Amino acid sequence: MNLHQMAEQALATHFEKVLGPTAPPRLIAAMRHAVFSGGARIRPQLCTAVAQACGMDAPQLTQAAGVAIEMMHCASLVHDDMPAFDNADMRRGRPSVHKEFGEALALLTGDGLIVMSYQVLLKSGQSHPSRLIALIQILSDGVGVPDGIIAGQAWECETRADLTQYQRAKTGALFVAATCAGALSAGADPQLWRALGECLGEAYQVADDIRDVIGQAQELGKPTGQDAQHGRPSMAHELGLGGAIEYFEKLIDRAVDSVPLVESGDTLRKIVRMESERLVPSSVCNSYRFVNATP
Amino acid sequence: MNLHQMAEQALATHFEKVLGPTAPPRLIAAMRHAVFSGGARIRPQLCTAVAQACGMDAPQLTQAAGVAIEMMHCASLVHDDMPAFDNADMRRGRPSVHKEFGEALALLTGDGLIVMSYQVLLKSGQSHPSRLIALIQILSDGVGVPDGIIAGQAWECETRADLTQYQRAKTGALFVAATCAGALSAGADPQLWRALGECLGEAYQVADDIRDVIGQAQELGKPTGQDAQHGRPSMAHELGLGGAIEYFEKLIDRAVDSVPLVESGDTLRKIVRMESERLVPSSVCNSYRFVNATP
Repeated sequence: MNLHQMAEQALATHFEKVLGPTAPPRLIAAMRHAVFSGGARIRPQLCTAVAQACGMDAPQLTQAAGVAIEMMHCASLVHDDMPAFDNADMRRGRPSVHKEFGEALALLTGDGLIVMSYQVLLKSGQSHPSRLIALIQILSDGVGVPDGIIAGQAWECETRADLTQYQRAKTGALFVAATCAGALSAGADPQLWRALGECLGEAYQVADDIRDVIGQAQELGKPTGQDAQHGRPSMAHELGLGGAIEYFEKLIDRAVDSVPLVESGDTLRKIVRMESERLVPSSVCNSYRFVNATP
Repeated sequence: MNLHQMAEQALATHFEKVLGPTAPPRLIAAMRHAVFSGGARIRPQLCTAVAQACGMDAPQLTQAAGVAIEMMHCASLVHDDMPAFDNADMRRGRPSVHKEFGEALALLTGDGLIVMSYQVLLKSGQSHPSRLIALIQILSDGVGVPDGIIAGQAWECETRADLTQYQRAKTGALFVAATCAGALSAGADPQLWRALGECLGEAYQVADDIRDVIGQAQELGKPTGQDAQHGRPSMAHELGLGGAIEYFEKLIDRAVDSVPLVESGDTLRKIVRMESERLVPSSVCNSYRFVNATP
């Protein structure tokens, strides 16, 4: 089973474990729609890859940590798609949660998934109490104030925002949570894996900005040109498309270099390179490399 | 300092502790607006009163538990007030969060407060790791699926809902969290205090239904007649006003009887009686006692 299949299976298992027979059926259907949506599952894959590099001595806990982080990510997508933010009708080629189930259930779906993330950790972490507490801390730091993804999203509501701080919080924070939680779930020092999460998080955000501009609507399964339309800060607008691509490549190099000297470090470095190719194919990089203004 | 003042001070202290200098200022202002709103602070008071009855040997932890529960309550009010649900412009005599800060920030305020609840517990519970984990579990059960307040709110989106199950989840769950967390934070068995939370939670919900019908808009600081307007299930509609008042009094009796035989049990029983008088004054009970239909 590859990392993606492992993540998908873990999500299905943990989702069912938390539910009880008394839960409201439409809420559950909406939560299911939000989670089982064909997502790339980058964060749980990253969490597991780091744990493997650290010897992964508690696979159940690693799995739960990855699932918890992915559920937080799904929760944020549901709320970000709502009319108060992006007003996006589609997500990954299907109707967004509020389009399919209405705004009330979309609101509760996000809330329910935030809490479910903690429930997933609680259900799997009882035999490792000190790691469990540290994982709950990492998860909360990645999501809440002052620097988690909720704070990141909130920077869109400020009249002035620092682009780096905005992107670090909006995307980077949950990538940092993924690498740190992966290490911690395997009993390793999470701080050594922080830089990898930071570089990858920023790289993903820049890749997203690039793809929003060059437009791969069909592949993304969501509308493009959203950053400009919503006046959101974007690296592709700040540096020009060529500059943003150059910056993306630098971030990937930094990510690769940040992997600590552990036995299976090479595997992880390879994963980062492959992921980079998936995000912004080198053919795209080459064709836009010398374009320094947005099209 | 009385229980209300203690709760208010604890909220202020813990709120500031979690914030950092890097948090987005408008989000923080909106979260502050949501939390410091002149609320009755019933849940943290109940949590502390139960802990005191159990010998309260870790007051910092008890305080954090009460704050966490109150923040979850505030989060739910912010989201419930939004146009997708009650579309309430006012809350406790002031503009609701979305009216003052817009829907985007209201959405994030609720999300941020949910996560902050966990952050508050984490900051104060490190010296009692096993109690901390159990408190996080109690908090999550009270809020998430299948039976917490989020599930309770979601029952409003179903075409068929059982009134008792709806009310138990929508209001009861967080009262149960308050009594159980109070006991647990003091090292006592939370299960002995479950019934008190259940009876009080239901009593509060019935009192709310009663007041929504008889109309105390000024005192409530929010519009009345909302249950009928939004087609929400209500005990005052199901039993008639007289029947609902009778049921309320029965629930208070049951709550008083459920208090376990502990040294300071009498103090707690008195608090329950006083609270009952504040919720639905006996003068109101007497004037409506024989009205068996809704006005």
